[in-house]
Amino acid sequence: MPGFDKSQALYQRARKVIPGGIPGHQTPGLMRRGESPCFIEKAEGCRFWDVDGNTYIDYMCAYGPMILGYNHPKVEEAVQKQRLKGNCFNLPSPLLVELAEYLVALVPSADWTVFGKNGSDVTNYACQVARAHTGKKKIIMAEGAYHGIGAWCNPNTTGITEEDRVNVLTFPYNDPQALQNVVKANKDDVAGLILSPFRHDAFHDQEMPTESFLQGLRALCNPEGPVLIIDDVRAGFRLDLRGSAAYFNLHPQLNCFSKALGNGYPISACLGNKALMPSARKVYFTGSFFMSGVPMAAALATLREMAETKAVEHMFRMGEELKQGLIEQADSLKLEIHYTGPVTLPFMTFANDPAFDKAKTFCARAAQEGVFFHPSHNWFLSAAHGEEEIKQTLRATQQAFEEVKEQFA
Amino acid sequence: MPGFDKSQALYQRARKVIPGGIPGHQTPGLMRRGESPCFIEKAEGCRFWDVDGNTYIDYMCAYGPMILGYNHPKVEEAVQKQRLKGNCFNLPSPLLVELAEYLVALVPSADWTVFGKNGSDVTNYACQVARAHTGKKKIIMAEGAYHGIGAWCNPNTTGITEEDRVNVLTFPYNDPQALQNVVKANKDDVAGLILSPFRHDAFHDQEMPTESFLQGLRALCNPEGPVLIIDDVRAGFRLDLRGSAAYFNLHPQLNCFSKALGNGYPISACLGNKALMPSARKVYFTGSFFMSGVPMAAALATLREMAETKAVEHMFRMGEELKQGLIEQADSLKLEIHYTGPVTLPFMTFANDPAFDKAKTFCARAAQEGVFFHPSHNWFLSAAHGEEEIKQTLRATQQAFEEVKEQFA
Repeated sequence: MPGFDKSQALYQRARKVIPGGIPGHQTPGLMRRGESPCFIEKAEGCRFWDVDGNTYIDYMCAYGPMILGYNHPKVEEAVQKQRLKGNCFNLPSPLLVELAEYLVALVPSADWTVFGKNGSDVTNYACQVARAHTGKKKIIMAEGAYHGIGAWCNPNTTGITEEDRVNVLTFPYNDPQALQNVVKANKDDVAGLILSPFRHDAFHDQEMPTESFLQGLRALCNPEGPVLIIDDVRAGFRLDLRGSAAYFNLHPQLNCFSKALGNGYPISACLGNKALMPSARKVYFTGSFFMSGVPMAAALATLREMAETKAVEHMFRMGEELKQGLIEQADSLKLEIHYTGPVTLPFMTFANDPAFDKAKTFCARAAQEGVFFHPSHNWFLSAAHGEEEIKQTLRATQQAFEEVKEQFA
Repeated sequence: MPGFDKSQALYQRARKVIPGGIPGHQTPGLMRRGESPCFIEKAEGCRFWDVDGNTYIDYMCAYGPMILGYNHPKVEEAVQKQRLKGNCFNLPSPLLVELAEYLVALVPSADWTVFGKNGSDVTNYACQVARAHTGKKKIIMAEGAYHGIGAWCNPNTTGITEEDRVNVLTFPYNDPQALQNVVKANKDDVAGLILSPFRHDAFHDQEMPTESFLQGLRALCNPEGPVLIIDDVRAGFRLDLRGSAAYFNLHPQLNCFSKALGNGYPISACLGNKALMPSARKVYFTGSFFMSGVPMAAALATLREMAETKAVEHMFRMGEELKQGLIEQADSLKLEIHYTGPVTLPFMTFANDPAFDKAKTFCARAAQEGVFFHPSHNWFLSAAHGEEEIKQTLRATQQAFEEVKEQFA
């Protein structure tokens, strides 16, 4: 393997002109220095090449956006067609209407949509719509959940005032009684409840919603209750093409999507039901690039290709093979692992690994063997992961597990 | 002219599935219904074609992003090169470092940069950095100024709580005494002062900063004072390629850019000086598409082409010709107009036109004659506007002024 010298050299240059070198969720600081790449040269299908020429089967999928495979021919063809016409205009392209109609027909509880760029754009917007609709202030979220970088929910409070958070209430995920207590205690002032479709906080094993929690949500969110907002930014289109709410038989008033919607092209969407449309119209929501045609072309092509090829079912099959393979390997080496969440967005941790040292060893060795995982953030399957890639992956993970076994004997 | 039937039909469809049909700053509601297009088919150079086949010389430039011309060959070549490698990865492409180094070398007061997608991303971030750096809370802005859709500054407060705004103070633009009074009255709690480089609020004549106001700013913003943030999102690269702060001989601690930076590709940047780097590093700033390579390729190509072709000087020359032409035409018809702001981002209003009726008549007739202006938002020149286009524009505006003269005699 050529190592990571070019990555490290670029990272040193980056640190001089960018605070932290690579800020945000892509920081290589979550891995051990020099054991994984920092910069990527190119990507194709479910593989990418780092700047040192190492190649990997990718289980992070750009942290979600890549769902059909990098550089997917159908998506790129649609992109190229719109790109020749142009991208960012004074006014939208007709694709705005086509995509809005497609999404509203696709997502069961939705009658309308707006578009932004970031996931944060639409989670912020959804809270505003909930407040405008109810005339109330408080937003409830699960403790430790990630809903973007809005001042009200940024997991890091540096530069954020207490006033920015004063209207946010929290409860422990999957605890319907605690949720009900928060609602009761703030009875006259709860505007909305924002939740990811399952618990996928970084640094934690994932948790699927319990049936009693789901029942509590269904009972709570009626036309008179708080507005239920499902933040499907991360998980959207990997559980059910109609959105993860449909997978869990939830009927939220608002659904937030982004990441995989455009297979990597920057777009986000908030979808809502009819009752909220008048309030939604009053909230001012705009951005220089919100109406750009190219990401809308990408989104339409992505959703259509996903539907035609039954991509979600394929991802479940591949995800199940990966899961079974990893569990068998760990079992046979008597390594205790937790493999949690849907198999299309799984996460694996090691027992007794509070600082993720075993996970980092596993990921570093897997990277050496040409497979890219993350030690402390959930993984992503894509439609481009096939039988062959899963087999190749499992050959790499066998080495990675053995390395963990050896180092942490 | 084929009229606007297809635009209107699409708009009616849009209204069923999108609150307001076309939300935000691109709403056709600012024009009179049926007198201007709602959807755009394609664009090239300084021209666009609406869905009904009408063509226009464009003085809105996508509300700023287009600066070299739509579909500019140099920009598109750089985009295509990166696009074949890929756009959105798990980690940045090397272009992150190249663009950061280029910008830091270009903008006089900057030692570092971060990247986002929207202008709002970086104005929000800048306020957080100012608070992190000073340990103080209050942000001062000019009354009525636009700094994005952050809850602290969205011009429309629907869905926004009073707590979101409690740390924002305002003063009347160009009033150094009033500004000083606000600072004094909140002496121990002012984190930052955010200002556009000149006053370019929609629905208002533009105002350049007076020399005494600029002097006040220079005195106020010292290492011990509030952090000066120049929001150059709208005006950036149209006054001076080094940023508008350089044009006004200001040395802000933070500069925000977006719009024209990538000639229409979605990217924003906050640049800061060395003293703020440790605080900047602590603010968590991230988004699914922040590190995408294609907009960074576009930004590098745009800035290089602007520098090589002396695009800013060209825009000033063309802007001056447009201004002189319009003023002469109005004068000769004895129409009183206000032509304000830099000639590269001018705005024209009519005297005694509180509801912008004359302006709407002017814009509607200009559109009929193949020139696209806005009645209540500043205009934009681009490097693709040449002598020929200015001449063609002035033939159209002669008709438009005559129509105003006739209708409002």
